[in-house]
Amino acid sequence: MAGPERLGRVQAALGEQGVDALLVGPSPDLRWLTGYDTHLAERLTLLVVPAAGEPRIVVPELEAPRARAHGVDDLAGLVTWGETDDPVALVSGLLGERTGVVAVQDRLWAMFVLRLQAAVDVATWVEGGSVLGPLRAVKDDQEVAALHRVGAAIDRVHARMHTWLRPGRSERDVAADVAAAILEEHDRVNFTIVASGPNGASPHHEVSDRVLQPGDPVVVDIGGTLDGYCSDSTRDYVLGHPDPDYAELHAVLEQAQAAGVAAVRPGVTAEQVDAAARDVIVAAGHGDRFVHRTGHGIGVEEHERPWIVAGDTTELVPGMAFSVEPGIYVEGRHGARIEDIVTVGQDGTADPCNHQPRALVEVAT
Amino acid sequence: MAGPERLGRVQAALGEQGVDALLVGPSPDLRWLTGYDTHLAERLTLLVVPAAGEPRIVVPELEAPRARAHGVDDLAGLVTWGETDDPVALVSGLLGERTGVVAVQDRLWAMFVLRLQAAVDVATWVEGGSVLGPLRAVKDDQEVAALHRVGAAIDRVHARMHTWLRPGRSERDVAADVAAAILEEHDRVNFTIVASGPNGASPHHEVSDRVLQPGDPVVVDIGGTLDGYCSDSTRDYVLGHPDPDYAELHAVLEQAQAAGVAAVRPGVTAEQVDAAARDVIVAAGHGDRFVHRTGHGIGVEEHERPWIVAGDTTELVPGMAFSVEPGIYVEGRHGARIEDIVTVGQDGTADPCNHQPRALVEVAT
Repeated sequence: MAGPERLGRVQAALGEQGVDALLVGPSPDLRWLTGYDTHLAERLTLLVVPAAGEPRIVVPELEAPRARAHGVDDLAGLVTWGETDDPVALVSGLLGERTGVVAVQDRLWAMFVLRLQAAVDVATWVEGGSVLGPLRAVKDDQEVAALHRVGAAIDRVHARMHTWLRPGRSERDVAADVAAAILEEHDRVNFTIVASGPNGASPHHEVSDRVLQPGDPVVVDIGGTLDGYCSDSTRDYVLGHPDPDYAELHAVLEQAQAAGVAAVRPGVTAEQVDAAARDVIVAAGHGDRFVHRTGHGIGVEEHERPWIVAGDTTELVPGMAFSVEPGIYVEGRHGARIEDIVTVGQDGTADPCNHQPRALVEVAT
Repeated sequence: MAGPERLGRVQAALGEQGVDALLVGPSPDLRWLTGYDTHLAERLTLLVVPAAGEPRIVVPELEAPRARAHGVDDLAGLVTWGETDDPVALVSGLLGERTGVVAVQDRLWAMFVLRLQAAVDVATWVEGGSVLGPLRAVKDDQEVAALHRVGAAIDRVHARMHTWLRPGRSERDVAADVAAAILEEHDRVNFTIVASGPNGASPHHEVSDRVLQPGDPVVVDIGGTLDGYCSDSTRDYVLGHPDPDYAELHAVLEQAQAAGVAAVRPGVTAEQVDAAARDVIVAAGHGDRFVHRTGHGIGVEEHERPWIVAGDTTELVPGMAFSVEPGIYVEGRHGARIEDIVTVGQDGTADPCNHQPRALVEVAT
């Protein structure tokens, strides 16, 4: 679906917002807009989308064959630069002598931003996300289908988790098996968090050499990319039987996660979903142990708009996709998190992409 | 070697250059400075290094345990922010009300640059590379040793290449074997370029489903990371015997690559190395077929200063490390490139990190 239709919608949005041009470097945005998948590098590649007129893309000469192979030249006029040319001067020439408002893609490197600011007389620079974010947040039918497909893929990995979790194995050993399984089901492994025992109390713990012990709870948060769309799902496991504190905490979390999902209704905002999940945890006395937002949008990026957090007043509409992933973290002891991706259906309610049971999984040891 | 000593050198450089503070987000620079290896994300992590005084690092609260596990708090005061706090306001507070010159790490995302520019009254923003680049370009003894170790690792992969190159196999098949071999020798695979037949004419071709044919030349440009340092080496292979044009072209390239390496002498500049290699190719009548620079610095990044290209007047000094990789590309037919990493020794001459024979390798078919 990348291509002229999306470029047209972006140009319309630029016009509506009074932005004269949008500059997009290699990024998920460029991939979403043009299908061109290339990496940010010290050699500048930059798509210049004016509010009206032909988009152009400035490309290093030696990458022009690759850009053509991706069909980029069907969408935007190719402007190539040689190794001793100044690509910023080319961009400046495309923008014209004086420009009112220019949006720059969120992830463009600072070095390019500063060079562009020095070279082009622009009255106001704005974040590209303000133009692209709202467009990307609402998925079309094919994107929704892709998110459900990749959700099923990660579900199949969680379904095999009990075969890898064993006392005596390290988190790193388990993560290697998990990564191999993700790769069987996806095009790419994005991350493997295997956080056992006290490591579960660090929400962004990845893996360590810690050896799993009988009775350990283990938080497993994993994701990959399939056909350009990301999965992201967390389940909690215990080697044997949980201690009563952990079981109680997990039961609260199940209620909180379900409350977040149930809160997705027509007219509801992103922050109201956060509040719905958070209220359950606060009521149970664990409020200060839920140290992160309830979720994040997902699509061609793992993390994108909307943000399921106080302050994001985005009204949820059909086609949006995001995680609902409350967590409770007890420093020095253990932690737990339950995460599903949901899409917003045509009726305005949540349609989960993940269907593995959300209850604590007791793994026989 | 990351740590107080490097931070001290950066602070001294800031003072000398009249820069009041340096802002460093997740990046190879942050890893080089502090050993903290984390990824750029929508949640801001930012090291604030004043020209004088204590460095501080702004970190999302939920990543504070991970930052502490990396020992970051031994190097910089930890300033954590919660999910509904504004991290840019924290940075602004650390910089003070008005600041003259602030350097921002080259890869910081545009969205953070624009927010910082809106929040902090800074007279001049400069590229962080102007401070960090010259420091990073000169490696210490341990870094030089790491580059030679990782060079030997990629040499061992090239030494096995003849076992994977066979008529009837696709570039993608070969690349999968190469990637597995890189991983045996490194901590991470960075890239695998397998460009056969006419694909060799695209310098940044990666892999395709093209099936290797008898007589095909194949450009293999591969690299990985070992102990934080990168390898990057290119050799050319032919399935059977080369056609005479290709053999002639490759012989020119061998001379050009050797001339580039031999040009590394005390007092020589980066652009003079480029000229030495380029002159050989121009003299042979292939000048317009050498469409890229002769090389790039390498270290914790694949591509870093100095740039071996006209316009980079950096004087080469002991400890510098860079690629010497001339190429000749004949569109629609074939291409060739020979690449070694060299370090500059104490006597000012080049010490190659790669020792595989540079001649065209004829693979028995």
